[in-house]
Amino acid sequence: MARPSEDELIARYFAPLAGPGGLALVDDAALLTPSPGHDLVLTVDALVAGVHFLPGDPPDAIAAKALGVNLSDLAAKGAEPVGFLLALALPDDWTEAWLAGFCGGLGAASQASGCQLLGGDTVRAAGPLTISITAIGQVPAGQMVRRTTARPGDMICVTGTIGDAALGLALLDGSDPAWQGALDAADRAFLVDRYRRPRPRTALAPALRDLASAAMDVSDGLAGDAAKMLRASGVTGAIDLDRLPLSPAARAALAAAPALLDRIAGGGDDYEILFTLPPGRWDAMAREAAGLGLALTAIGEVREGEEPLCLRLHGSAYALATRSFQHFGAAFQ
Amino acid sequence: MARPSEDELIARYFAPLAGPGGLALVDDAALLTPSPGHDLVLTVDALVAGVHFLPGDPPDAIAAKALGVNLSDLAAKGAEPVGFLLALALPDDWTEAWLAGFCGGLGAASQASGCQLLGGDTVRAAGPLTISITAIGQVPAGQMVRRTTARPGDMICVTGTIGDAALGLALLDGSDPAWQGALDAADRAFLVDRYRRPRPRTALAPALRDLASAAMDVSDGLAGDAAKMLRASGVTGAIDLDRLPLSPAARAALAAAPALLDRIAGGGDDYEILFTLPPGRWDAMAREAAGLGLALTAIGEVREGEEPLCLRLHGSAYALATRSFQHFGAAFQ
Repeated sequence: MARPSEDELIARYFAPLAGPGGLALVDDAALLTPSPGHDLVLTVDALVAGVHFLPGDPPDAIAAKALGVNLSDLAAKGAEPVGFLLALALPDDWTEAWLAGFCGGLGAASQASGCQLLGGDTVRAAGPLTISITAIGQVPAGQMVRRTTARPGDMICVTGTIGDAALGLALLDGSDPAWQGALDAADRAFLVDRYRRPRPRTALAPALRDLASAAMDVSDGLAGDAAKMLRASGVTGAIDLDRLPLSPAARAALAAAPALLDRIAGGGDDYEILFTLPPGRWDAMAREAAGLGLALTAIGEVREGEEPLCLRLHGSAYALATRSFQHFGAAFQ
Repeated sequence: MARPSEDELIARYFAPLAGPGGLALVDDAALLTPSPGHDLVLTVDALVAGVHFLPGDPPDAIAAKALGVNLSDLAAKGAEPVGFLLALALPDDWTEAWLAGFCGGLGAASQASGCQLLGGDTVRAAGPLTISITAIGQVPAGQMVRRTTARPGDMICVTGTIGDAALGLALLDGSDPAWQGALDAADRAFLVDRYRRPRPRTALAPALRDLASAAMDVSDGLAGDAAKMLRASGVTGAIDLDRLPLSPAARAALAAAPALLDRIAGGGDDYEILFTLPPGRWDAMAREAAGLGLALTAIGEVREGEEPLCLRLHGSAYALATRSFQHFGAAFQ
């Protein structure tokens, strides 16, 4: 079957997603007029089929994830989304139906977040589908929330629930875990959906700017990411694994297989916000989160010191079998 | 041999390239404070080994090209470079020596252009090396040079020389062309270097803002790109192929093989600036270019009409055997 030309592809699938800065995608570059008094926050994430998502995942979910992981970074920095640029390396066997699904998902995620397509590039590569998105957000000048500014005495807090995506991946990756028998179909669907479709916590960005002392998003596993934030801040701390917020589905899986705790605390793809908070601000932050219908849980505290983050279970130190389920690769912003 | 961890890679190779907005590459996102009264110009280009460069090209040249093609887009829009984000998909057989060479070239190109590394992401993909760079430039508010604003009566102009890179690629791609015998070693090296190392015309950006009516960079072949610019502007025009500025090396090759004209006019990777200019501004533009040591050539004119760009040779209409040597893929900004 004849494939559309590049120009047809752009006109048919990408141009409808473009915001005004995208100049209808017919120029060499996009134009962005920054809001006066604001800083820009920029992040790039590359996702590779078979590494960051499964090749068989629905194309609209792949698109939503590719944008969502970037929106999650922006949210953790207290930034509101502005726009994004897409570089799409298509494998040899791409189909127009796949691309239509991908662009549908991308458009929906873009509209839902107010993050407009500014421009992009498509290439063909004899390898796995690779999607690289650079997202741009804005914060009032000087108010980007850093990863490096956690202070002794702060509470360590997290949004939503932890571990769902890592369990969802285990349901999809062919490992056929015994504990899946403890879950009903709705639980399994919930976990898979949490793996496939991050919920970037964009709405919490203003409250993070006002109240959090430091923040990052949880992408490479809670334990590893928390250790990273404390190390970058020059402090240490402790997290009580029994306080991790779990969904009913994750709770059921953990009850059936207690060893899953390591995967829950160490697996990735949560895309929740991990942040530190002076205790006096807890009530204000809890009110903000409640107003957004977003769960908020205090899971530990920051302390002075250089030693690694301490994980505790029932009050005793606990070592994860594998600290991080991280694949090769690292974002460096 | 043990490979360095991601954190080691970042500290060793990427962190030294980071500008202040890169926050030493230890946060989740980069921070950019836009200059008041300026617009941002954004562009993304993905380069794939075997498509946009040859896998055996020197790693520092690959890096310089990956940044350079983006800088070329910015220059054509009249923008000064500010910073860039990098997504690097490494093939399974990457080596630290390759990465060191790549980062060396990237650092040199970054320093030479004042375009700082703001952040990035590295991933491993079982496919060809793929480099995606998003570059950010700035222009005084409202002064981005568009592709869509060429006007009837304008001159069509181009910087530098055309066709060198396409001839350089022909010397490298194993086709072993007969005309290479007409070139001495210095000519051959010149053409290969023009393929491998674009010279983004960043210094011309202010003059383009002040004087050009429309501009784009020549990346997919002069004839195809000129047709694109005129179409996007809703006009037509003519280009005299005998007026194309040729390097001595390209001139020697063309003398030996006149059919090379099609490759010179239709091949890609020139990374010169194609722009339109009201004739009354020619003298001013020529002075600006001369001050930069940059050749400037008028090659045609813009006319009213909707018909395709007319190519002429010795005053007669000329049809390229292949209008464009473009690989699959298209940038859409």
